[in-house]
Parts: sequence; structure tokens; C-alpha cells
Amino acid sequence: MSRPKPHTVEAPPLQVDEWLNASAPIDLAGLRGKVVLLYAFQMLCPGCLAHGLPQAERVHRMFREDDVAVIGLHTVFEHHDVTGPAALRAFTQEYRWSFPIGVDRPAPDGNIPMTMRDYALGGTPSLVLLDRRGHIRLHHLGSIDDLALGSAIGRLLEEGAEIGGGAGPAASGPARMRDAARMPAWRRRPSRGSAAGPRRSAGTAPVRFRKG
Amino acid sequence: MSRPKPHTVEAPPLQVDEWLNASAPIDLAGLRGKVVLLYAFQMLCPGCLAHGLPQAERVHRMFREDDVAVIGLHTVFEHHDVTGPAALRAFTQEYRWSFPIGVDRPAPDGNIPMTMRDYALGGTPSLVLLDRRGHIRLHHLGSIDDLALGSAIGRLLEEGAEIGGGAGPAASGPARMRDAARMPAWRRRPSRGSAAGPRRSAGTAPVRFRKG
Amino acid sequence: MSRPKPHTVEAPPLQVDEWLNASAPIDLAGLRGKVVLLYAFQMLCPGCLAHGLPQAERVHRMFREDDVAVIGLHTVFEHHDVTGPAALRAFTQEYRWSFPIGVDRPAPDGNIPMTMRDYALGGTPSLVLLDRRGHIRLHHLGSIDDLALGSAIGRLLEEGAEIGGGAGPAASGPARMRDAARMPAWRRRPSRGSAAGPRRSAGTAPVRFRKG
Amino acid sequence: MSRPKPHTVEAPPLQVDEWLNASAPIDLAGLRGKVVLLYAFQMLCPGCLAHGLPQAERVHRMFREDDVAVIGLHTVFEHHDVTGPAALRAFTQEYRWSFPIGVDRPAPDGNIPMTMRDYALGGTPSLVLLDRRGHIRLHHLGSIDDLALGSAIGRLLEEGAEIGGGAGPAASGPARMRDAARMPAWRRRPSRGSAAGPRRSAGTAPVRFRKG
Repeated sequence: MSRPKPHTVEAPPLQVDEWLNASAPIDLAGLRGKVVLLYAFQMLCPGCLAHGLPQAERVHRMFREDDVAVIGLHTVFEHHDVTGPAALRAFTQEYRWSFPIGVDRPAPDGNIPMTMRDYALGGTPSLVLLDRRGHIRLHHLGSIDDLALGSAIGRLLEEGAEIGGGAGPAASGPARMRDAARMPAWRRRPSRGSAAGPRRSAGTAPVRFRKG
Repeated sequence: MSRPKPHTVEAPPLQVDEWLNASAPIDLAGLRGKVVLLYAFQMLCPGCLAHGLPQAERVHRMFREDDVAVIGLHTVFEHHDVTGPAALRAFTQEYRWSFPIGVDRPAPDGNIPMTMRDYALGGTPSLVLLDRRGHIRLHHLGSIDDLALGSAIGRLLEEGAEIGGGAGPAASGPARMRDAARMPAWRRRPSRGSAAGPRRSAGTAPVRFRKG
Repeated sequence: MSRPKPHTVEAPPLQVDEWLNASAPIDLAGLRGKVVLLYAFQMLCPGCLAHGLPQAERVHRMFREDDVAVIGLHTVFEHHDVTGPAALRAFTQEYRWSFPIGVDRPAPDGNIPMTMRDYALGGTPSLVLLDRRGHIRLHHLGSIDDLALGSAIGRLLEEGAEIGGGAGPAASGPARMRDAARMPAWRRRPSRGSAAGPRRSAGTAPVRFRKG
Repeated sequence: MSRPKPHTVEAPPLQVDEWLNASAPIDLAGLRGKVVLLYAFQMLCPGCLAHGLPQAERVHRMFREDDVAVIGLHTVFEHHDVTGPAALRAFTQEYRWSFPIGVDRPAPDGNIPMTMRDYALGGTPSLVLLDRRGHIRLHHLGSIDDLALGSAIGRLLEEGAEIGGGAGPAASGPARMRDAARMPAWRRRPSRGSAAGPRRSAGTAPVRFRKG
């Protein structure tokens, strides 16, 4: 392979004290060998709810856990008083997000929380894509469509096959494309009944029934 | 007109201590002569955000203020701790809802707030449609499509022309349909730039930019 | 009722020699007492397929047959050679439109077919709404949203209750709104399984399987 | 790179006598070095119009011409009489598809046209993805979402970087991900004004104005 390697940098560590949808704290070092999608959001940001979070959920459901790790990051920089961890838990429960979500650590000296500052994120929603070595390869503020994001993930997955993946997950990747007359074989996580992801799922039970 | 009048009842009063998007408290008696759309919701209810609130916004923007009054009602019966008035204000500001929203008064003895209980609403989103006399004419839990809601409002508007509307707003209603080769002449409130209403508008600025 | 009646004109007759989805030729005189929605379209017009025809289908399914008659009108004024009656039949079968469709009579002297010319339609999609007396009340070129169209139909239905409807269908209209905690009681035609109408229905069987 | 190569076969040649949106006949041999997306459709197939063709258009607009070639294939196996080349040309013009479309050669002995038969396609829409060597790698009947298709294309693009791409187009691929804070740098073809592709573009001029 004669193609020159891009010069990239390792992603800063996540500064998170509290996790949702995770049985233990997550650190990036433990995810070496996987492509990582970091999705920064705020629970009251309309673009996050309309676009970013459903996309994160789709990626989480589409790819094998060994190939792609999706991590939500609640980077609160406005409405701090009403979007704390308790509000985030209620929000996450109502929308049934299934990927791990970390609460970005508030900075002692300002509004921008610490991981958001270290990654120089310009707002929410923002996504950061890390290759299998943990290096930053894509840094995007705002909407990105599924075709572009899928392609970027696909390239990093295939690239990873050489760099560090060994004969493991990647070995079975392209070969299994052959028989994909149904949904891709690399879809691993069980769907909640609808190919359209969280939006449709929410659609099946959009009503909150009173209990008493 | 020989058609028998339906037997209907007057709507109970709203029990609201705090209003958003309103310069003064709103009571139903003051809305006699208008068709009233009450939309009960909770800010963390996915079906409310996906369907109910955008529909309320569309109705608010579609009809003349003299003809139709839209009132949101925040009927919190779960997640009370994180969906109080401060959270509702942040939510309303972020999504730019433009219709008045009242906070349903919490009941001293239970989860169901008082207006929700008086109207026997089964959950959120729920809508209640009042005729020009303030009588309940439609009571709906969950999604209702725009064609059905539009038709119900249209019937009440036309009916109201006889009952109490006088020669005022209704007089110019159907007549002005004649030249509606463009958007209906009875649309009165200025759009925020997109025919699709709040969802599209949110789409034009979906990103939250950090300020510091 | 003191409101002045608008001055309106009777709709010109339909000039149609061939009907689809109809057991006999349809003429407007036979529809007196119903609100009539005429929807002019061309089978290769993208806006007709994206917006107009699904909306016509929704109206057809939403209202009682005694209240609202939906009529499609294939007003071919371009691509005559490939959008004749045989092509229209294949198109109608594939998209499963369920309302009657008439082929507008070609003019001997030009491109604009005869009904289209008599109604002075500016293009496709166009809709024309007739009141229960057969008078033109709404004339619209391009997209109109469901809320506006529903409201216009609702007003004409209620107005019709006085003008000519007698105690028949209209008598049961507004009264039955009371118990509409489910879909409106005046929906009469059986749905094809999805509230979203033809688009969703198409979605359930979007694939054309080869037969040989 | 130690990962075993999948065993794949070369794609059969296209049997096409007539092309739209192409200045010269296209054969697969001439596309070596590019990933090829073949999209089989019929112009009166609702699933093709709702899903397949807009997706083909999005792929065509998203990727560099040197990286990905999109080819539509009109595989008529029903409604032959009304979906011949003249009808296809009108359809293509109205929907403004910008990728090349070939008319699959009718078989002398049956309904299934010859390329469709050679590729053993089960219906429409169907897509076939070829790697840079011209081997079949994905074969899909029905809907596939953009994330899955994007990922499959991304893997083949990256894989192609080793196999046959040389230092050419692929060399600049992943490296340029670094600065993708806007839409991906590998988008090359000019958009028609809307990020949402053909559906939105159609939306900007959905009305057919009469000319005479």
C-alpha cells in the first residue's frame, strides 16, 4: 500500500464523572481497535433532537459493537439550571436512547464544559470520529447526512483492518457484503421493531398515559 | 336552518397560575366568539414534540387571531422535578413556540394536575376544541392529522358564524376563499420563513453555537 | 343568520370521455348536496405525485362519501404521447389511487385540454373546491397544506348544512365530534392499513417482484 | 495486511442499447478503478420513486466522479407498452435525474430483460455494488438505508486504495476528513440548491405551468 498516511493526532481523554446507559465508566483507551463516534449534544437543543441524536442512535444500531462505539456527550453550555443529570436521565429514558451518554464535566471558570473545550467543539450538535487508533479523523458541527457519515465510518473501518484490527472483526466485513439481499449482515444490535430508529419507535407510543 | 343543535357542555375554567407567551392571564370567558384549541402536553413527551406541539404551532399561524385561539397547557404528571416552570421556559424559548402556554396547577393530592383532571384528559398530547360559545366539541388523545383537525375547526368556525360571531370575522370567511390561488387569505400571523412551521424553522438554525 | 352570502358561480361541466375507478360516468349535477374536490394532475408531474395525489387520496379516505366527493382529473398538457389513458391506467394501478379519475378531453386546437381550459387552471397540481350547490369556492394552483384544505372543506360542509343538505349527513356531523377520542367518526372509507395514506401504503410493498 | 481477500466474481456486462444522460455508451470495463453503483428500477414502480431513485441521485451528487460511478438501469418487466424509451425520457426529464440511465435490453423470449436476468435481480428497486476491480460486492433488493449504503461504499473506496487505485483519488480521501467541519470535501458535483437532493429540488418547482 503506497498511499501516504495522513498526519493525525490522538483524541483528548473524555472528562466525564457520570454515565448513563453504561455499566462502568468509559475511557477512549479502552476502545482502541474500534471506530468511535462521539456525539456532543444538549437535551434542549432542537437540532440535536431533530437530527443528531436519532443519527447517533441509528449508527449505534447499525454497526457491530466490535467495530463502532457510539458515545453521547452532554455538553451543557446554556440552560445549566434545568439540564442537569436528573433532567438528562428523564430525557434519555423518555426517548429511549440506547447508547452510552456521558455528562461533560462543568468547567470551574466558565460556561463551556471541559471535554467540549478540549475538543474545541463550536456548538451542538457536533460529532467527532476517531479511527481505530484513537486519532481524530472527522470533526463536524451541525447536520451531516447519513450517506456521508456512513461513508466516513466505512473508510475508517476498512483502513482499520490494516492498521490495528488484526484478523478480527474486519476480516469478515466486506466478504459478508455478498449476500446482503436483506439488511446488512453487520447490523448486530436488535432493532426496536422499526428500521427507522428512535423516531419511529417513539411514534409507536407517542402518547403519555396518565397513571392515576 | 332545521338541523338539530347538539347538546354540549361548557368547558371547565383553566386552572393556571403562570403563563408564557402571554402578556396577561387568559381565561376562557374572555375568548367567547372564538374557536379555542387547547393543547395539553409535557415537555419531555416524545409524541408531544414530534406531533402535538408543531401542530398547535401550525394552527396558531394558520388562522386569524379573531377566529381561533390556541392555548398550550403544560399538564405535568411525571418527571415533576425536572419539568417545572423554569425548564418549560427554556424549552419554549429553544423551540420558539409562539402561542400562549399555561402551567396547569399541580394538585395537592396527587400527580394529575387540576385542569387535566377537570377535563378528564387521558394523557399527553391531548387536544380539546371549544366552539365559539365555549362548549367542548372535540376531545382527542394522541395524534390527529391536520386534515381532520382542520375540518373540525372549519365546521366550528362556520357554525359560529350563526351562533354568536355576528357579521364580524366569519362574514369574510368563505367569500375570501374565491381567490385563494396562493396561501389562504385567512392566514394572518407572519410565518418565520418556512411554510413547514416550527420544525423547518428549527431546521434553519439547528445548531447551538457556543458563546464563550 | 345575518352574514351576507358570497356571490359565486356554478362550476362548468366536466368534459371527460373516459373514467378510471368509476362504474359509470360522473357529472357534477349528480353530486349536488356534496362538497366536491376536483384535483387536476398529470402523471409525470413531480409535484402532483409528491403532494397533490396523496392529498386527494387522504381527503377521499377521510370524509364520508355522502359529504365529500373527490375527483381526479388527468389534464395532460405536455408529454401527450406517453401519458395517454393506457399509461394512466398503469400508473393508477401501481399507486393504488382509490378515487375516480377522469381523462380531460383533448382540445382539437391546442395543448390545453378542455376542462382545464374551462376552469382556467394554470397548471398542475391544481385543486378546485365546489360547495354543495356546485359553485366554485376555492381555486388553488400548487401545494396547499392539509390544515388549510381541511378547514375550507369543513366550512363548506357546515355551510351546506343550511343551504341544501337537509337533515341528512350534515345533521350528524358536528354532534359526533363529541366522542372523537379516536380518529374522526366521519372517516368512512376503510384505510389500507396506514394512517399516512398512499405514501405509507406504497411503503409496505415498494418492491416490484419479477414474476418470471 | 494479513486479512484474507474475499472470493468474488466479475460483474456481467451491461446489455444496453440506449442511454440517457450519457454522451456515449458506458461499459463496465471502462469504469475499472471506480466503485460502481448499479441501480435497477422501473419508472412506474412506487418504491423506486419513493426510495431508490432519490438515493441513487444522492450518491451521484455526494461522491467524486473519479471515486464512484452511479448507473441507473431501466429493467422493464411489466407495463412494457407504456414505459418504453420515450416515456423514460419524459420521466427522466421531469424528475431531473442527473446520473446516466441505460435501457436494459428486452429479452426475445420473455418478460425479464437481459441484464436483469444476468444479474439475477429479483425485482425493483435493486442495487448492485461493484468494487474498483469490477467485482460484485453487494446485491440488494428493496430499500437500504443511507447509513448502510454509505458504509459499504466507504469500505470499497478504502479497499480500492490498495487494490488498484494507485496514489490517485483515494490518496486524498481519508486525509481530507480532517477538516470536514463542513460538508465532506469529497462532494464534487454541484448541488441543485438544496442539500436534500432531488426530492427537495423537485419541491422547489413542483408545479407544472401550462404554456399555452
